[in-house]
Amino acid sequence: MKPLEMIHDSIGKRVIVQLRGEREYRGVLEGYDHPHLNLILKDAEELQGEEKLRDLPRVIVRGDNIIYVSP
Amino acid sequence: MKPLEMIHDSIGKRVIVQLRGEREYRGVLEGYDHPHLNLILKDAEELQGEEKLRDLPRVIVRGDNIIYVSP
Amino acid sequence: MKPLEMIHDSIGKRVIVQLRGEREYRGVLEGYDHPHLNLILKDAEELQGEEKLRDLPRVIVRGDNIIYVSP
Amino acid sequence: MKPLEMIHDSIGKRVIVQLRGEREYRGVLEGYDHPHLNLILKDAEELQGEEKLRDLPRVIVRGDNIIYVSP
Amino acid sequence: MKPLEMIHDSIGKRVIVQLRGEREYRGVLEGYDHPHLNLILKDAEELQGEEKLRDLPRVIVRGDNIIYVSP
Amino acid sequence: MKPLEMIHDSIGKRVIVQLRGEREYRGVLEGYDHPHLNLILKDAEELQGEEKLRDLPRVIVRGDNIIYVSP
Amino acid sequence: MKPLEMIHDSIGKRVIVQLRGEREYRGVLEGYDHPHLNLILKDAEELQGEEKLRDLPRVIVRGDNIIYVSP
Repeated sequence: MKPLEMIHDSIGKRVIVQLRGEREYRGVLEGYDHPHLNLILKDAEELQGEEKLRDLPRVIVRGDNIIYVSP
Repeated sequence: MKPLEMIHDSIGKRVIVQLRGEREYRGVLEGYDHPHLNLILKDAEELQGEEKLRDLPRVIVRGDNIIYVSP
Repeated sequence: MKPLEMIHDSIGKRVIVQLRGEREYRGVLEGYDHPHLNLILKDAEELQGEEKLRDLPRVIVRGDNIIYVSP
Repeated sequence: MKPLEMIHDSIGKRVIVQLRGEREYRGVLEGYDHPHLNLILKDAEELQGEEKLRDLPRVIVRGDNIIYVSP
Repeated sequence: MKPLEMIHDSIGKRVIVQLRGEREYRGVLEGYDHPHLNLILKDAEELQGEEKLRDLPRVIVRGDNIIYVSP
Repeated sequence: MKPLEMIHDSIGKRVIVQLRGEREYRGVLEGYDHPHLNLILKDAEELQGEEKLRDLPRVIVRGDNIIYVSP
Repeated sequence: MKPLEMIHDSIGKRVIVQLRGEREYRGVLEGYDHPHLNLILKDAEELQGEEKLRDLPRVIVRGDNIIYVSP
């Protein structure tokens, strides 16, 4: 299975997106692009370590800073 | 939905642009380019954490440093 | 032997993926892409030094941050 | 409006160029290139935070390090 | 002589691979790819400064982080 | 005027080259390449802040690390 | 004169190669490639500031980390 297929199959499901700098975004994956792996999350929250920083009803997370995406 | 379509649909609306280094720009999205994701904001303000640093009537934010864009 | 062949031969086997910033992921390699070297791990765990941070039933690790992959 | 058009329209006008590492350049935009966004400033000054570091009668600022350009 | 030829001639021999962040890998070069310079080492050990961190029977070291390779 | 034209017009003249990491090189521009903006300086000196580190009769400065070039 | 020509003319001569992170390599240039600017040095020594770290009979220095090359 290719990483992009797994991203594709995760549309409509909640995912964890870990970025460099200890930031994490959790939300429902609404879309992505290829090959940049920019992601759209809905009903998202931003966390730093265990601390919740902010609710983001919709957010486009740039792919460059992503460490991992966990469906 | 593709990230770029959501950016496109946000033209004329206020967006939050989070950059590396804890900087944040808030303003009305006037334009963007592809694939760099450079953005033009109008009536923008620059924040660092909770502190407002500066008003920027117009600003071109380079896409390279963007962590997320939230419409 | 090419690095990509060795990655390919490791599908279905446990691998150690070391990232920048002292993070390590261990799990069963399910897939990869070329040339980005994004990897899918199953039954994975995330470690920082010796400390286990989290279980990740499935995770797509972005290739950009990889230091090494050890089959 | 595209970011590059706004850069183009700013030729002959004073701009603020914010770089990574808290450096800022202010001067009259004389030219630019595409797609690197290298800029030529005339009668420029270099600032770090509020402190003025240096006058630069002419300077080519490399686009790579730019955070924003504000006309 | 081109760097890639020297890499090629080092296959089957022990090499030192120095990475950013003071990490070093020593092992027998089994393979490489072009142009990324990803390397496969066999019977490798990972060192940080003078301290040995780990034995790695086989490891694919990503070329991006390499400072030097010494045959 | 394009940045590259200004670089070209500076051949044979003294320039200041500011790099990331507070390093500065001053010397007579002998050549450059495109698009990397690697530069050759003659009769150059290397400075860190106000302190002179070294004389370099000839030096090829890699373009990647350049913040600005001032003719 | 182009930077690459000067590199080419330096084959067989001693050069100083300054890298990011205060590392320096001195040795006889045996080869290079284009456009990466990877270099082969013979009878090289690695220095950090004024301190000699290691002798390297032969070493391939990756171009990415180079700040300057001085023939």
